[in-house]
Amino acid sequence: MGDKKAEEVSITIIDYDEAHLEEKEAKEIEECFPFKDTPTVTWINIDGIQNVDVVEKIGRHFNLHPLAIEDIVNTGQRPKMEDFGDYLFVVLKMLHYDEQENGVKAEQVSLILGPTWVISFQESWGDVFDSVRERIRGDKGRIRKMGADYLAYALIDAVVDNYFMILEKVGEDIEEIEDELVTNPVPETLQTLHNLKRQMIFLRKSVWPLREVISRLERWESPLIQKSTHIYLRDVYDHTIQVIDAVETFRDMLSGMLDIYLSSVSNRMNEVMKVLTIIATIFIPLTLVAGLYGMNFRYMPELEWRWSYPLVLLVMLTIGVLMVMYFRKKRWL
Amino acid sequence: MGDKKAEEVSITIIDYDEAHLEEKEAKEIEECFPFKDTPTVTWINIDGIQNVDVVEKIGRHFNLHPLAIEDIVNTGQRPKMEDFGDYLFVVLKMLHYDEQENGVKAEQVSLILGPTWVISFQESWGDVFDSVRERIRGDKGRIRKMGADYLAYALIDAVVDNYFMILEKVGEDIEEIEDELVTNPVPETLQTLHNLKRQMIFLRKSVWPLREVISRLERWESPLIQKSTHIYLRDVYDHTIQVIDAVETFRDMLSGMLDIYLSSVSNRMNEVMKVLTIIATIFIPLTLVAGLYGMNFRYMPELEWRWSYPLVLLVMLTIGVLMVMYFRKKRWL
Amino acid sequence: MGDKKAEEVSITIIDYDEAHLEEKEAKEIEECFPFKDTPTVTWINIDGIQNVDVVEKIGRHFNLHPLAIEDIVNTGQRPKMEDFGDYLFVVLKMLHYDEQENGVKAEQVSLILGPTWVISFQESWGDVFDSVRERIRGDKGRIRKMGADYLAYALIDAVVDNYFMILEKVGEDIEEIEDELVTNPVPETLQTLHNLKRQMIFLRKSVWPLREVISRLERWESPLIQKSTHIYLRDVYDHTIQVIDAVETFRDMLSGMLDIYLSSVSNRMNEVMKVLTIIATIFIPLTLVAGLYGMNFRYMPELEWRWSYPLVLLVMLTIGVLMVMYFRKKRWL
Amino acid sequence: MGDKKAEEVSITIIDYDEAHLEEKEAKEIEECFPFKDTPTVTWINIDGIQNVDVVEKIGRHFNLHPLAIEDIVNTGQRPKMEDFGDYLFVVLKMLHYDEQENGVKAEQVSLILGPTWVISFQESWGDVFDSVRERIRGDKGRIRKMGADYLAYALIDAVVDNYFMILEKVGEDIEEIEDELVTNPVPETLQTLHNLKRQMIFLRKSVWPLREVISRLERWESPLIQKSTHIYLRDVYDHTIQVIDAVETFRDMLSGMLDIYLSSVSNRMNEVMKVLTIIATIFIPLTLVAGLYGMNFRYMPELEWRWSYPLVLLVMLTIGVLMVMYFRKKRWL
Amino acid sequence: MGDKKAEEVSITIIDYDEAHLEEKEAKEIEECFPFKDTPTVTWINIDGIQNVDVVEKIGRHFNLHPLAIEDIVNTGQRPKMEDFGDYLFVVLKMLHYDEQENGVKAEQVSLILGPTWVISFQESWGDVFDSVRERIRGDKGRIRKMGADYLAYALIDAVVDNYFMILEKVGEDIEEIEDELVTNPVPETLQTLHNLKRQMIFLRKSVWPLREVISRLERWESPLIQKSTHIYLRDVYDHTIQVIDAVETFRDMLSGMLDIYLSSVSNRMNEVMKVLTIIATIFIPLTLVAGLYGMNFRYMPELEWRWSYPLVLLVMLTIGVLMVMYFRKKRWL
Repeated sequence: MGDKKAEEVSITIIDYDEAHLEEKEAKEIEECFPFKDTPTVTWINIDGIQNVDVVEKIGRHFNLHPLAIEDIVNTGQRPKMEDFGDYLFVVLKMLHYDEQENGVKAEQVSLILGPTWVISFQESWGDVFDSVRERIRGDKGRIRKMGADYLAYALIDAVVDNYFMILEKVGEDIEEIEDELVTNPVPETLQTLHNLKRQMIFLRKSVWPLREVISRLERWESPLIQKSTHIYLRDVYDHTIQVIDAVETFRDMLSGMLDIYLSSVSNRMNEVMKVLTIIATIFIPLTLVAGLYGMNFRYMPELEWRWSYPLVLLVMLTIGVLMVMYFRKKRWL
Repeated sequence: MGDKKAEEVSITIIDYDEAHLEEKEAKEIEECFPFKDTPTVTWINIDGIQNVDVVEKIGRHFNLHPLAIEDIVNTGQRPKMEDFGDYLFVVLKMLHYDEQENGVKAEQVSLILGPTWVISFQESWGDVFDSVRERIRGDKGRIRKMGADYLAYALIDAVVDNYFMILEKVGEDIEEIEDELVTNPVPETLQTLHNLKRQMIFLRKSVWPLREVISRLERWESPLIQKSTHIYLRDVYDHTIQVIDAVETFRDMLSGMLDIYLSSVSNRMNEVMKVLTIIATIFIPLTLVAGLYGMNFRYMPELEWRWSYPLVLLVMLTIGVLMVMYFRKKRWL
Repeated sequence: MGDKKAEEVSITIIDYDEAHLEEKEAKEIEECFPFKDTPTVTWINIDGIQNVDVVEKIGRHFNLHPLAIEDIVNTGQRPKMEDFGDYLFVVLKMLHYDEQENGVKAEQVSLILGPTWVISFQESWGDVFDSVRERIRGDKGRIRKMGADYLAYALIDAVVDNYFMILEKVGEDIEEIEDELVTNPVPETLQTLHNLKRQMIFLRKSVWPLREVISRLERWESPLIQKSTHIYLRDVYDHTIQVIDAVETFRDMLSGMLDIYLSSVSNRMNEVMKVLTIIATIFIPLTLVAGLYGMNFRYMPELEWRWSYPLVLLVMLTIGVLMVMYFRKKRWL
Repeated sequence: MGDKKAEEVSITIIDYDEAHLEEKEAKEIEECFPFKDTPTVTWINIDGIQNVDVVEKIGRHFNLHPLAIEDIVNTGQRPKMEDFGDYLFVVLKMLHYDEQENGVKAEQVSLILGPTWVISFQESWGDVFDSVRERIRGDKGRIRKMGADYLAYALIDAVVDNYFMILEKVGEDIEEIEDELVTNPVPETLQTLHNLKRQMIFLRKSVWPLREVISRLERWESPLIQKSTHIYLRDVYDHTIQVIDAVETFRDMLSGMLDIYLSSVSNRMNEVMKVLTIIATIFIPLTLVAGLYGMNFRYMPELEWRWSYPLVLLVMLTIGVLMVMYFRKKRWL
Repeated sequence: MGDKKAEEVSITIIDYDEAHLEEKEAKEIEECFPFKDTPTVTWINIDGIQNVDVVEKIGRHFNLHPLAIEDIVNTGQRPKMEDFGDYLFVVLKMLHYDEQENGVKAEQVSLILGPTWVISFQESWGDVFDSVRERIRGDKGRIRKMGADYLAYALIDAVVDNYFMILEKVGEDIEEIEDELVTNPVPETLQTLHNLKRQMIFLRKSVWPLREVISRLERWESPLIQKSTHIYLRDVYDHTIQVIDAVETFRDMLSGMLDIYLSSVSNRMNEVMKVLTIIATIFIPLTLVAGLYGMNFRYMPELEWRWSYPLVLLVMLTIGVLMVMYFRKKRWL
């Protein structure tokens, strides 16, 4: 069960056919009851499902099964489609990108498709259905000429179209981090990578069952869905597959990026090791030479010679230069 | 075969229909035999199956197949569903979180669904069925109005609902360790990670076959299951899928966390290496310089100069500062 | 939606049967309308789909479904095949290797197969269909003797054949980098490896759905596809499987190469470590010896001896040689 | 083809029905021919199949197909089930744990199920069928009341039950090594881990096809298998699934253990690195200080001061202590 | 398309029935045309398909489809089976182990099965079909009594049997390298491992489609294949599965060996690190002590003492011994 926000319930009713359009905001849930048996298409949208009372009232009037009502109210459902004979019940996940928490959040949307009406339940006010409202108001496309099943299709399509926006956002995040990986990989990059991976797990969980839901809807033999609507559902199905493709591609890319991260970290380590080795390898022998002539033996003839000091310095320089050349040849420098 | 605890067998009988309710604790297994042919719904619950005698007696009276009895008594079964014609036989795994051993334990629950009775076998006293008992006693929901198949559904539902509690517990453990990973990864964290992974393997093993069991139950054409019960079984099926989803998500998260652990360990190593390299790289050349002027050559004119000592110190300081600046530029500091 | 280049639309019409051949470049889209109902096979090729007007006009005249027109214009479609009764609608991805960006790019090709005509839509001028044009003009093979379905097959075949060229190109890149891996692995190699992997993800995404498309086409029972054409479609299907095989093989090879890269990096690290260890292990003890005789104790009898200096040098040499021998035995040198 | 041991062939015949039981050891293969057409159930067990002559003679008398005979003699077969109309031919793998080589070995068991007889072929004397013999002799369970198909089931069941013993053995090995991993991971542990993994590959190869074999047997519509036997085959099938489950669980656990091993090795390395770094970091600067005052400059005023030596010692001590405190804070100690 | 060797074409014809056998080497392809309509079984074997002319001539005479001829000549086909009504067309891959390049090579073999004849096409002279020739000549087994379909089976069987030889060879290579891994892992081992892995990818690519081909052949309802031959095809199918099993097992083993290699490399690294750490840890503090008494302070009372030098040496020895003991306890030595 998701968290139930304390917002008010908002009920909007849109009733239309090709010729007429009525739109109103209901104060009481009872206001939408008369629309049940009119021949015109009616769309009842309920924002804020925390008011269980309202959902139960509408359930009783529209003869919804107790299990359906339970699923509408408990927001932890997987996307699914259930045929109750008189109506179809569809649960979807609507995603939105939370800028503050830098992550994808999900919200449950339930649709009930009856013969001439569609009831939609949302967790909170969202604007994802605004495009559908506009199309009804403006009489754009064929929506005013078609039945309730086409309206349900339009709503599902709006939800799925919204996924593409989310994917674009996530895609940008991925590209940003990919640049970071190449230019300057820091431990925080790994953290971000990990977060993106978790979001992919989350997206997958929302999107995979959606595919099945829409595939079942498309192939479903129900008097509630007209034959001409099937091709539109097929279209939404294609979109869902595109979304899944994108999610899987992102997953593959993220896996590849983890490999890149780990091996650039190991490359850096390598570089550090080389510097250490070179410094140590050059200076440790020289230090020995210096140590030798710091010994206090009485009989060390070199100590008395006139040119031994500059000679020793020269020898040291030569050793150093030879070593640098050796490392060059070994491609360590 | 699980370990058979030496507890006593406890037999409780609940017999009910819409109007009447009888509940009693049986001392002898024979007490429950008369309920077999009454038209009312009877639920016989047997806790503690180590007493093979009791199970065999009830098996003979209720005409259970020897293989079913064997499966009830041997607790290493996979969840499964078997149709023996006169009755359905269902084996489930009930999970509980063992606080002492910090892990998930499983217990076998077997259900026999006959025309008007349900027999449930548990390994030990559990309270997972208490909610069902309450609903029968309180006449809550539709349980008193429905048949034995609905009772069986209610029991299965209670078992599956219990899984969510386990998952919540495990989810908390995972979140706790995730925080630990980021703030302070120690070898013990890895051990805990490993334990969580093993629990996931265990959970998966219990949950995946459950899905098949309930899916078969839901699609099964048997006179023992009424049509109206199928939608409830479909609901349990959805819950099972949710459980599987959660387990798979946890598995994915744990894999990701292992990567995080390993790379933060490697990051730490990196940091240690850098410190070593920096110290060595700065001090080894300076040590050479000091060694040079510790040499005992007779003709080292610098030794006699007035300001060579402070000059050498200054040179050393300069070399050190330059190196620190170089490492800064290289982003090693 | 792909980027819509501002190129002009180019419309070419080829109308033929066994005896006659007419080829013309249309200025206005209306010029191709009369060919709709002629008994001869007509191929209308439209390059540059950014001019939505043209697509919509042709759609209206040829009675195309609005969703089909939408899919033609929006270039982010997955390969798919749709039967609209009067015509079949096929979306394919045409790949070409972009030498400048060193990567594979995709372009959407849509085909409409009617009873006596095929309409093809391309994003920009391409030469992949030139071979088909040549075959029509030169009356090579059976193309002039067959119907519109064979023409559609020929176009699909041209697209799939083009994939082999891309694969050859990518195969060369892979072989080149494989040699590099063995001779001289540098961080840039990893970057190239990563790019090749991303291209494989991209290729897979284009090729896998293609398989399904052509498989469906081959098995499709439609009056638009004659029986004799099915064996040709089966042949294209085999080619698609070969392409998929190659892509999967490349993926496997790339995974193996990442392992090779990582372990040759780790081998190099190992080599560096060994050098450091050997140098340090040989010189640090010698430095101690030198340090010992640099101590200023008054009573160090060795300091006064005549041959201690050469003796100490000899001892040092012996220690060094023994250590080198030890490392030889340990196979570190 | 397995190695063919030079052991003698041993032929035992058990002929029984509910009332009578005849058991004899045959010297010549011809002794078992008369039992072919008796109405009683006959079990002919042949140990040691290296004597191809015997197998071919029996094959001719019982009308076995040449391919079946070939499969009996060549011991590299996968488990499989073949219906030859007059008889069913089943190939199984019997496993036993070879204590000397510390690994699982397989042996081929072939069963021929005719209308009233079962012929079993084993590579060498085994005791896995002894339990079946005991049940026939002692008239335990229902075996004497049932037909040849039940006998075949009993033999298959004996083979599968034997798998659980193997799994228990392997499970113990895994647990032993798991303890070793935590307490003291040495390279030998890895070797053992690797051996266990190879055994899992081997077990999988034997067990997965078994599942298919028994599943086919269970669903097979053959007059040779009575309806009442199907539920027993279903039971063996469940056991096979349990075996597969266990093998997969072991595989998952072994993968997890490899990760544990690798990361505890890397943890150890880490610890070693830290010690090195700490020692070097503390002593290298101190050595520089000592080196400084070992320089032979004439004008080093500190050298002449009364308390410089103890002061320098104090400074060195302070530096050391501060560093240790720093490392403590960094959690390196 | 494979490389087309410039070898001559060689055509051999074997015509037989139970009573008669005719064998001849054809100079001209036309010599084999008369055998098309004889009732006896005719096997035409064509070695060297680079002579497209010959293939096309035979194709015209035997009414082969242009696509089949194309597939025979282009040697990059996947194994496949195609029913052209009058004849079946089968493409296989024949493998042979190239000792010089130390790898597995593939060659395409195409079979055409007509009512009374089989035509086989090979890329170059091979001896894999010699065993079939021997069986025909020697009248061994049932080959002379059966039709063309059995001949086709015998040829396919010869190809698949040849795979076992390849697998044995590869298996030996794997075992050899496994021993090397344990005794002395060098970078070349990794290279060999990588090569073996690539061969596995190659083998898989050849073997997996073979499985489908033979499975389709076995289940195919064609008048060209007699019922009695199906059981033989089933046998070849079992062999194919065995080959696939072996390939998959080899793959699993090679993956495990890569892990072993990487961790033994890391173990060696570990060992090297320990030696470095131990040397550095023991000698660096001692060097400091020596450095201390090399300082030139005027007031260092120890310098004047009689026994300080041997005392200091003793202290150093003690420190060294204590450290070695500490490392022993830590199990680093």
